Amino acid sequence: MNAGDGVYSYSKNSHLQKEMIDGAKEMVIDAIIRKLNIKIILSSSNTLRIAELGCSVGPNTFSAMQYIVEALKDKYLLYQDQVINFTNNIPEFQIFFNDHVTNDFNILFRSLPFDRSYYAYGIPGSFYGRLFPSRSIHFVHSSSGINWLSKIPKELVDEKSPAWNKGLIHYVGASNVEVVNAYFAQFEKDMEVFFNVRAEEIVQGGMMVLITAFSGYIRLMRFFGSSLMDLVNEGKLDESLVDSFNLPLYYPSPQEMTKVVEKNGLFSIERMELINIKSNLVDEADAKTLMTSLRSSIEGVIISHFGSKIAEEACARTILKSEEISEWMKVNNEKPSILFVALKRK
Amino acid sequence: MNAGDGVYSYSKNSHLQKEMIDGAKEMVIDAIIRKLNIKIILSSSNTLRIAELGCSVGPNTFSAMQYIVEALKDKYLLYQDQVINFTNNIPEFQIFFNDHVTNDFNILFRSLPFDRSYYAYGIPGSFYGRLFPSRSIHFVHSSSGINWLSKIPKELVDEKSPAWNKGLIHYVGASNVEVVNAYFAQFEKDMEVFFNVRAEEIVQGGMMVLITAFSGYIRLMRFFGSSLMDLVNEGKLDESLVDSFNLPLYYPSPQEMTKVVEKNGLFSIERMELINIKSNLVDEADAKTLMTSLRSSIEGVIISHFGSKIAEEACARTILKSEEISEWMKVNNEKPSILFVALKRK
Repeated sequence: MNAGDGVYSYSKNSHLQKEMIDGAKEMVIDAIIRKLNIKIILSSSNTLRIAELGCSVGPNTFSAMQYIVEALKDKYLLYQDQVINFTNNIPEFQIFFNDHVTNDFNILFRSLPFDRSYYAYGIPGSFYGRLFPSRSIHFVHSSSGINWLSKIPKELVDEKSPAWNKGLIHYVGASNVEVVNAYFAQFEKDMEVFFNVRAEEIVQGGMMVLITAFSGYIRLMRFFGSSLMDLVNEGKLDESLVDSFNLPLYYPSPQEMTKVVEKNGLFSIERMELINIKSNLVDEADAKTLMTSLRSSIEGVIISHFGSKIAEEACARTILKSEEISEWMKVNNEKPSILFVALKRK
Repeated sequence: MNAGDGVYSYSKNSHLQKEMIDGAKEMVIDAIIRKLNIKIILSSSNTLRIAELGCSVGPNTFSAMQYIVEALKDKYLLYQDQVINFTNNIPEFQIFFNDHVTNDFNILFRSLPFDRSYYAYGIPGSFYGRLFPSRSIHFVHSSSGINWLSKIPKELVDEKSPAWNKGLIHYVGASNVEVVNAYFAQFEKDMEVFFNVRAEEIVQGGMMVLITAFSGYIRLMRFFGSSLMDLVNEGKLDESLVDSFNLPLYYPSPQEMTKVVEKNGLFSIERMELINIKSNLVDEADAKTLMTSLRSSIEGVIISHFGSKIAEEACARTILKSEEISEWMKVNNEKPSILFVALKRK
C-alpha cells in the first residue's frame, strides 16, 4: 500500500477498498449473528480477540472493526442469559491490526478512533506465517488481503517455461492458460499455508470472513499493463523489464475458493457469495476514481520493480485511458463484484 | 523520545537506558526464578503475556525482552513436571510493546530481532490508562518508564503559588521544598492510577518489575537548566519561557516507592534495591556520552516548549559543560544508580 497521506496515498484513495468493506458489511454482520456460537466462544475466555489481516493504514479498517465489534456485542446480548453461566461480565475486545512490516503503523495508530470500545494492537508480519499463539483468536477479518500472493511463481518470468508471461504483467488478459495455471497453483499453495496457520490460531468454533475482489476491478489490470507496453513501444522502457514483472495478485472464483477450503479440510464453509457492489462505477469520472484507487494499492510493487519515474508515467497514462476503460466496462457489462466467504474452524 | 535514527536519535544514543537495563538484568532474572509462581500462572493459560511499558524504539527493549523470555523458559523447565498437569505444551510468549502514540513504532517493528521466540505486538497509548483486558497479563517490565509523570502539576507554573518554580526546569536543584512536594504529589497520584489499572490487567500472582533512575543521571538536569538560564542572561531567551517549563520527570527514592506501593495495597513488594551501575561514568568523555544520552530522551519535550533552535543551543551548551559535570560528579562522589522494584499482584 502507498504510505503516508499524500495525493496518491492509500489513506486518501482507498475508495475501492471502502466499497468492498461497505458491500460486505451486511454479510459479515449476518455471519456473526446467525453462525457464530458465542456460548462456545465465551466459555473459555471473557475477551473476544479479533484479527484484522491486511489492515493497511485506515480509515476503512476502522469502520469494518466498528461494525464487527457491534455485531459481536449484539450477539452477546441476545445470548446473555445463557452465556452468564460461564462469565459474569460483558466481554472485552482486543483487535490485532496486521499488515506487512513495511506498512505505516504510525499513521494507523495515530488514526485510531478515540471512542473505540476495544483494545487496539499492531502486529507486523506476513499472514502466511504464524502471528498468534495457539487457539487464541475468535474472529478473523480480511478484506483484499488474500488477493496478495506470497510470491510470484518463478516459471512466469522464465523464458524457457511454457508459463512465461511475455509482454504482460498479470494473468488477466493472458491467452496462455499455463500462466493462469501457474497463478492458481501459487494461490492454492498460499491458501494451504494460510488455512493451516489460521487453524492453529483460531479457537474451535471461531470464524473467519474473507472478502476478495472478483471482477470489474481486476480487468483494469490489463489497461495498466498496456500503458507499460506503450512505454516499451515508444522506446522508453526495456521490454525485458515488463517480461520480468508480474503483479502478485490473484482473484479466486467461488469454485476455486471452495476447492482450496475443502482441500485443506480444517474449516467449514458457512456462506459464500458473489456480491455486486451497489455503485455503478462505469462513467469516465468513476473509471478515473477506480484507477487512482488501484494505483494506491499497487504502486508500491510497481515502483520497486520499475522505479518511480516509470511507475508515475504508467499510472498517469492509465488514468488518461478512463474514457476507454469506461466504454469497455459498459460494453462488457462489467460491474465491480466481490467474493464473500464465511468460514468456521471445525 | 527522539524519533528516527539520526545523530541525536534515541536508537543511537540510549547508552544511559542500556546501562539501566544491563544493570537490572540479574535482578529481573532472579525475580522470575525465585519469586514467580509459574504453576499458578500457567494453570489458566499456556501463553505467557508480557507487557513492556515505555519501550521506545529499541534496541534496549529487545535485549530486556530476550532475557526475560529466557528466564521464563528456564523457570518453566525447572517446574515442568508439576506444570505438566495443567498443560501439555511448552508455553508460547506474547510481548506487547507499549509507548505513547507518538513513538516511532515503524522503527520498532522494523528492528524486531529475526530470531525472536515470541509473538510481538505494538500497543500505543499512555500506561496511566488501561491497555489490556482484565487479568490477561503475566509479567510487566518497565525501565525508565514511570519516571515520566502524566503531567506537570499546575502550581509549578503559577506565579501566585508557593510552589512556583521560577528560573528552574525541575525539582532537582530547587531550594523551594514546595516544588519538591508538588512533584511528589503528582508522582503519588500517577502511581495510584498506574497500580490500579495494572492490578486490573495482571493475573493474580503476576509480577511487575519497575526500574527507575535514581541519582547521578538526575543531577545532570541542573546543568541542562543552567544552560537555558545562560541563554536568558544573554538575552536570547525570554525568562518567562523557562519559568513556564518543568520537566515531567520524577525519581523516587526507595522510601517513596515503598510508600506509594503500600498506600495502593494491591501489590506486594518482593524485592526493592538501589543498584550502583558498574560503569564509572565520571570522566569528561563519559559525561558527554551521558548528556547525549539524556538529550535523546528529553529533547522531545524541550523542543515542543522552546522550539528546536533553543533546544539545539541548550543541548550543545550542556555538552560543552562536560568537564564541569565530570568534576562535579567526582567531588560529590555521584555514581549513577538505579532503583529496582519487583512487585507481585496480590
